[in-house]
Amino acid sequence: MRLKVGRWEKVPEEVVSSAKGLYRRWLITPRDGAPNFAMRLFRMVPGGETPPHSHDWEHEVFILSGRGRATLDGEEYELSSGTFLFIPGGVEHAFQNDGREDLVFLCLVPASAVPPGK
Amino acid sequence: MRLKVGRWEKVPEEVVSSAKGLYRRWLITPRDGAPNFAMRLFRMVPGGETPPHSHDWEHEVFILSGRGRATLDGEEYELSSGTFLFIPGGVEHAFQNDGREDLVFLCLVPASAVPPGK
Repeated sequence: MRLKVGRWEKVPEEVVSSAKGLYRRWLITPRDGAPNFAMRLFRMVPGGETPPHSHDWEHEVFILSGRGRATLDGEEYELSSGTFLFIPGGVEHAFQNDGREDLVFLCLVPASAVPPGK
Repeated sequence: MRLKVGRWEKVPEEVVSSAKGLYRRWLITPRDGAPNFAMRLFRMVPGGETPPHSHDWEHEVFILSGRGRATLDGEEYELSSGTFLFIPGGVEHAFQNDGREDLVFLCLVPASAVPPGK
């Protein structure tokens, strides 16, 4: 029975080396005792992007601030504060920040997708 | 393989009858094909509150806007935009909006906690 209350700005940020201009914070993970899913916060700088990729697990995403585009299964979607996305496992997805500010978003994944040690 | 992209403001809002001044939107649920966890968005009006309660499943919460307080296991925490909370199953929790604006937050739960039909 471990509570966790924090502010995202205070969580250490790590570089996501598989993308361009993308940084990740692990807010709530199995290491905190979260049994089923993990909450991460991403910050993508202007001009940043992830290459198109897919994997077995789903994403649940909520855009907090900034503007950008997602390409999901070949189709483009505009992103801004208040957009949410469900990206099922197996769907090819890519994100791009074509705005002037950081694109900041939550992306939650099942616990089974969290690497050991996180 | 069903994508879902939406804006939270466009999702129908329902009254949470067990609380005061609290409204819920189901953004991503098992009905959308989400296999492991569900994303809900809550809006609590100024003066609104939930009674202290607990249940077997966890909450993962992220405050989007507004100000308020959470009482978790008897201890008080201030809430504002950017606060995140992990509330394990079995921990008594209550929320209160003591600010002047709506307190808006995401609260995610495991799929097993989603009522049939949602």
